[in-house]
Amino acid sequence: MNLTEEMTALAERAKKAARVLATLTTEEKNACLEAMAKAIEDNKSAIQEANRKDMEAARDMGLSAAMLDRLELTDKRVAGMAQGLREVAALPDPIGRVIEERNRPSGLRLRKISCPIGVIVIIYESRPNVTADAAGLCFKSGNVTVLRGGKEAIHSNHIIGKTMVEAAKAACDRFPEHAVQVVETTDRAAIKEILSLTGLVDLCIPRGGEGLIRAVSECSRVPVIKHYKGVCHVYVDHHADLEMASRIVHNAKLQRPGVCNAMETLLVDETAAGRFLPMIAASLTKAGTELRLDERSRSHAAGFIESNEHPHLIKSATEQDWDEEYLEKILAVKVVDGVDGAIEHINKYGSSHSESIITSDEATALRFLNEVDASAVYWNTSTRFTDGGMFGMGAEIGISTDKIGARGPMGLEELTTYKWIGTGDGLIVA
Amino acid sequence: MNLTEEMTALAERAKKAARVLATLTTEEKNACLEAMAKAIEDNKSAIQEANRKDMEAARDMGLSAAMLDRLELTDKRVAGMAQGLREVAALPDPIGRVIEERNRPSGLRLRKISCPIGVIVIIYESRPNVTADAAGLCFKSGNVTVLRGGKEAIHSNHIIGKTMVEAAKAACDRFPEHAVQVVETTDRAAIKEILSLTGLVDLCIPRGGEGLIRAVSECSRVPVIKHYKGVCHVYVDHHADLEMASRIVHNAKLQRPGVCNAMETLLVDETAAGRFLPMIAASLTKAGTELRLDERSRSHAAGFIESNEHPHLIKSATEQDWDEEYLEKILAVKVVDGVDGAIEHINKYGSSHSESIITSDEATALRFLNEVDASAVYWNTSTRFTDGGMFGMGAEIGISTDKIGARGPMGLEELTTYKWIGTGDGLIVA
Repeated sequence: MNLTEEMTALAERAKKAARVLATLTTEEKNACLEAMAKAIEDNKSAIQEANRKDMEAARDMGLSAAMLDRLELTDKRVAGMAQGLREVAALPDPIGRVIEERNRPSGLRLRKISCPIGVIVIIYESRPNVTADAAGLCFKSGNVTVLRGGKEAIHSNHIIGKTMVEAAKAACDRFPEHAVQVVETTDRAAIKEILSLTGLVDLCIPRGGEGLIRAVSECSRVPVIKHYKGVCHVYVDHHADLEMASRIVHNAKLQRPGVCNAMETLLVDETAAGRFLPMIAASLTKAGTELRLDERSRSHAAGFIESNEHPHLIKSATEQDWDEEYLEKILAVKVVDGVDGAIEHINKYGSSHSESIITSDEATALRFLNEVDASAVYWNTSTRFTDGGMFGMGAEIGISTDKIGARGPMGLEELTTYKWIGTGDGLIVA
Repeated sequence: MNLTEEMTALAERAKKAARVLATLTTEEKNACLEAMAKAIEDNKSAIQEANRKDMEAARDMGLSAAMLDRLELTDKRVAGMAQGLREVAALPDPIGRVIEERNRPSGLRLRKISCPIGVIVIIYESRPNVTADAAGLCFKSGNVTVLRGGKEAIHSNHIIGKTMVEAAKAACDRFPEHAVQVVETTDRAAIKEILSLTGLVDLCIPRGGEGLIRAVSECSRVPVIKHYKGVCHVYVDHHADLEMASRIVHNAKLQRPGVCNAMETLLVDETAAGRFLPMIAASLTKAGTELRLDERSRSHAAGFIESNEHPHLIKSATEQDWDEEYLEKILAVKVVDGVDGAIEHINKYGSSHSESIITSDEATALRFLNEVDASAVYWNTSTRFTDGGMFGMGAEIGISTDKIGARGPMGLEELTTYKWIGTGDGLIVA
């Protein structure tokens, strides 16, 4: 079999499994998820043994320390996979929900019902725990997963997939064994092949760096829901409570700098800059944050800059900084002309992820909330809240920065589509 | 300016207009739509003059009679455009709707709010009235349209677009004049250019034949919501009321054979075929319908076939017939083994459009409704109901056969996305 045939056969198995999976009851799905969780715990040593093979090869390939860290399946991470599957089992079934009901004058009774999307291809990098997390969420929402992880995690991904499938088969007669498939080959060309199968694959969700996501969406002929970078902003308005602003800026930047909902650029209203910038610059540099200031910020913070104890943390921003997702203790700072300037900057440079305004003026807040084009917009709130757990979704497969299909955190409901069910009593169109 | 620059400039103007359009009030949008409607009526003779130019050129190019018919802007069609715009003005504004509200234990107050998608490219063929219909629906839902019709309708499309824009400008100061743009060039390469602008264009909706839609989705890097063909089925079960089945089959096939929700294949349960097939074959052929029968249908209808008065209407089905959207008085007929056979056939050959089961047995109906993968599934009802008007949406831009974004009839609500608005009082993540 050549690669095209191999990928087509895999996708055909997936499509077939999707028909059966869509008919599983909530109880059957939950029993499978519980069994998968237990099997991952029971097979911990075998999983870690496979992971050690990947780790060794990765070291030989010269992968970075950060990559190696993401690749490693520590005790905690194995336990985390099992716990994640149990949490998903405990969540309400998103399938079969009546989203809307309409009784038409014609006599037609219409119901809009949530249903599975079908076959979802997940493409991801290094972290092998994504295998269990993504497969679990898709499975609960009635979707078949085709999992294509990084070459460096191939042994880990395979054993996790195999463990889940065997456990579910034993737990439920009707479990379709191709409901979760880990792609065997590490050939990069396989991605393009599988993403060309529009009749068999319903959706692709790439998870990883910008380069991966861009490459996937460029080659795909099936719909892709992208999870791009988070270039998130906090805008401190003229009418801001500056104590509150400071608390939120510290939280948004420093509570966990390496995540996509952390702030990357601080926007300060011209009329608040003289009061706010010296104060926030002092506290942020004291906390070890490097600041990249535009010219107007520099001049407003000039007194602070001259006398501060961390001169190496003060730099000048360039155009490139407005696009940057640092994911570390670096913050770009820009002075803007009121909420108009903030909206304009964010709509130009933002990544449609999470944006916040700090103000006590409601009219200003409403303008920001309405006019900023992003999946989550906040008022007097840290950007760090954009998260499936925080939103009450229980678990998420990621944060969509797209607008078609799902936007923002994608939990179980966001992994469904709908169909219209119409009933009548011999109804015909007149 | 070369084509890339020209298309980029056009899309940048569209994006800019989208920011302003999103802030228009319902009253402002409705005033624009009313003014557009009136202007189309007032400029009827100029519009028809431009249309005559297109018609002449089309005749010279040797376009088919059907194409010429679709291209012509008769009095009735011009009036229809104006009426369509007024109907859209009268519909509720789909923007700003609170889809969901959540108060989280953290103190975060979350609202999920409907908002415009942004810039939508509509690609269509021959029928110039689509220019007004699509632009009106997109405008009401806060979206900017870039309209790219067929070369043969270029003069008609331009004058319709210009008429709408000038009327709206006069009616509302804040109307952004690039909210509706008809692409100037007829260069085919323009489509690929504009559909590569992922940062500026949010969605593409192609409307037209299968070839057009396929070409668009293959070249596009922006999301596409496809409106493919409708290969719709009616399945007559063992437990069907055969009088009802006959009424629905006639309605689904013959009430208007040229539309996408008309039935193309009739599936008959093996155990009902002996009773139903001779009867339905007689009445359908009497009504001038050509039948393409599979082998089992032929044998069940053998008595009828031998003695019937329309032998030229009886043909044998080939594999290709199961994929065919005839759009005329031709019907493929197949005998299947119960509801399982029907579900299997439809999920293999159907186009995810509209599928109906005729049965008095609820358990059988539920299996069909749950397991058939289509945007609309019906019980004892004609497939002809899949339509924005019938569904109470008021008007539709088309019928999506996709699963991501919108499925089935796409009215105003289906032309929106959503954002999450989170408010707090200095809320930070612990």
